[in-house]
Amino acid sequence: MTQTVIEQLQSHRSIRKFTEQPIEESLLRALIAAGQSAATSSNLQGVSVIRVRNPQTRRAMAELAGGQEYIEEAAEFLVFCADLNRSGWCCERSGKAMADGMTEHFIISTVDVALFAQNVVVSAESEGLGICYIGALRNDPQQVSELLALPENVYPVFGLCLGYPDQAPACKPRLALDAVLMEEHYQPVNEALMVQYDETMRAYYQERTGGELDRVWSQEVSALLGKKSRPHMRAFLESKGFKMR
Amino acid sequence: MTQTVIEQLQSHRSIRKFTEQPIEESLLRALIAAGQSAATSSNLQGVSVIRVRNPQTRRAMAELAGGQEYIEEAAEFLVFCADLNRSGWCCERSGKAMADGMTEHFIISTVDVALFAQNVVVSAESEGLGICYIGALRNDPQQVSELLALPENVYPVFGLCLGYPDQAPACKPRLALDAVLMEEHYQPVNEALMVQYDETMRAYYQERTGGELDRVWSQEVSALLGKKSRPHMRAFLESKGFKMR
Repeated sequence: MTQTVIEQLQSHRSIRKFTEQPIEESLLRALIAAGQSAATSSNLQGVSVIRVRNPQTRRAMAELAGGQEYIEEAAEFLVFCADLNRSGWCCERSGKAMADGMTEHFIISTVDVALFAQNVVVSAESEGLGICYIGALRNDPQQVSELLALPENVYPVFGLCLGYPDQAPACKPRLALDAVLMEEHYQPVNEALMVQYDETMRAYYQERTGGELDRVWSQEVSALLGKKSRPHMRAFLESKGFKMR
Repeated sequence: MTQTVIEQLQSHRSIRKFTEQPIEESLLRALIAAGQSAATSSNLQGVSVIRVRNPQTRRAMAELAGGQEYIEEAAEFLVFCADLNRSGWCCERSGKAMADGMTEHFIISTVDVALFAQNVVVSAESEGLGICYIGALRNDPQQVSELLALPENVYPVFGLCLGYPDQAPACKPRLALDAVLMEEHYQPVNEALMVQYDETMRAYYQERTGGELDRVWSQEVSALLGKKSRPHMRAFLESKGFKMR
């Protein structure tokens, strides 16, 4: 392999069209083992991964995710869950009551999940696979929980499609590095860099759509942040024991 | 490089002792660029990284983190922040009011941070650097915010020490893969695998401490989850605009 790891990571893009080639069982297990090797707060290992193969379950998830049919088509579809259920077992075994519902525990387990998943992603891409994260499982986390029989103290953070790519999209440009790396203190928003990025993204979308889409980044972000995204999340999390105490 | 990426990831361990060798500026920037290339929900890019070089700031953070002196000693110390301040700028530019305080936005930005950081970590380790995540910045996130002048809608998720390793610790064993990878549905806790892991960890600690430390994993976890960890987090997050709505 002549590509360095840094070059590999910098060439990441999401894949939404996959060939029918399956992923070898031994490779899938190696990816999960790489995920397990990621850092985890106090060795908590607050992560469970549910591998979904049942076509009905895949279809239900594709639908609740707003019609993302690659959830049905990908060689593998994994649901990454923040898991404090095992921790509950540990507390019981040690004769302690679990301090349930702490915001801090929510953060720890959510971060654990993301570090684990990103290791799976990096491993997968190093082996020629493509991936797509599916945050839209949070459109209906209650239904996801029912489909997967998730117990209390477990919630689905996101899904992940994995398979051999059947498309080769360009990398999406990112903000200027100096807009996100700051020295010593937080720096006020650098408007020149933002406006420049807006124009970069306008050109990117124009090129991708043959001139049809005229949109800039700040519009995209304001579409996301200007509305009450997934307002059910708080009540859902509470119902699963993540009470934000 | 003969080591595969999967082998590299599986050999991760935290480094807490570093040589005095600095990290080349160009390498540091390449690591951050690799971080930026990680997936980000709806291209939000809800991450800012603050590079802390000032020795007084480093010392203050080492102290509030409970005396982790490698925060002072590492070649670089980065604080990873979930950042919706830039999103606020985008909303303003688009003439929209930001729906502030949504739990979903908290999740998106926190996950964005973790995916970004893990790419930095994987890149760093591929170049011979060692790392240590510092979740203990959340011991006193208010002081961290003041030291770094963090505005509203920005919170410090964790820190990261980076440098050339001056130690070679063994990898910490993880749970059996079959305890975290589940087929189709959530599986009840597999007690046999848990008990087996407890014994693996007992042997690991015995070996590391010359027989002094007699501790198992379930005890460690119950020590963390059996107490109200960082009970200030909720009020702190609210004060920064993350209101868990």
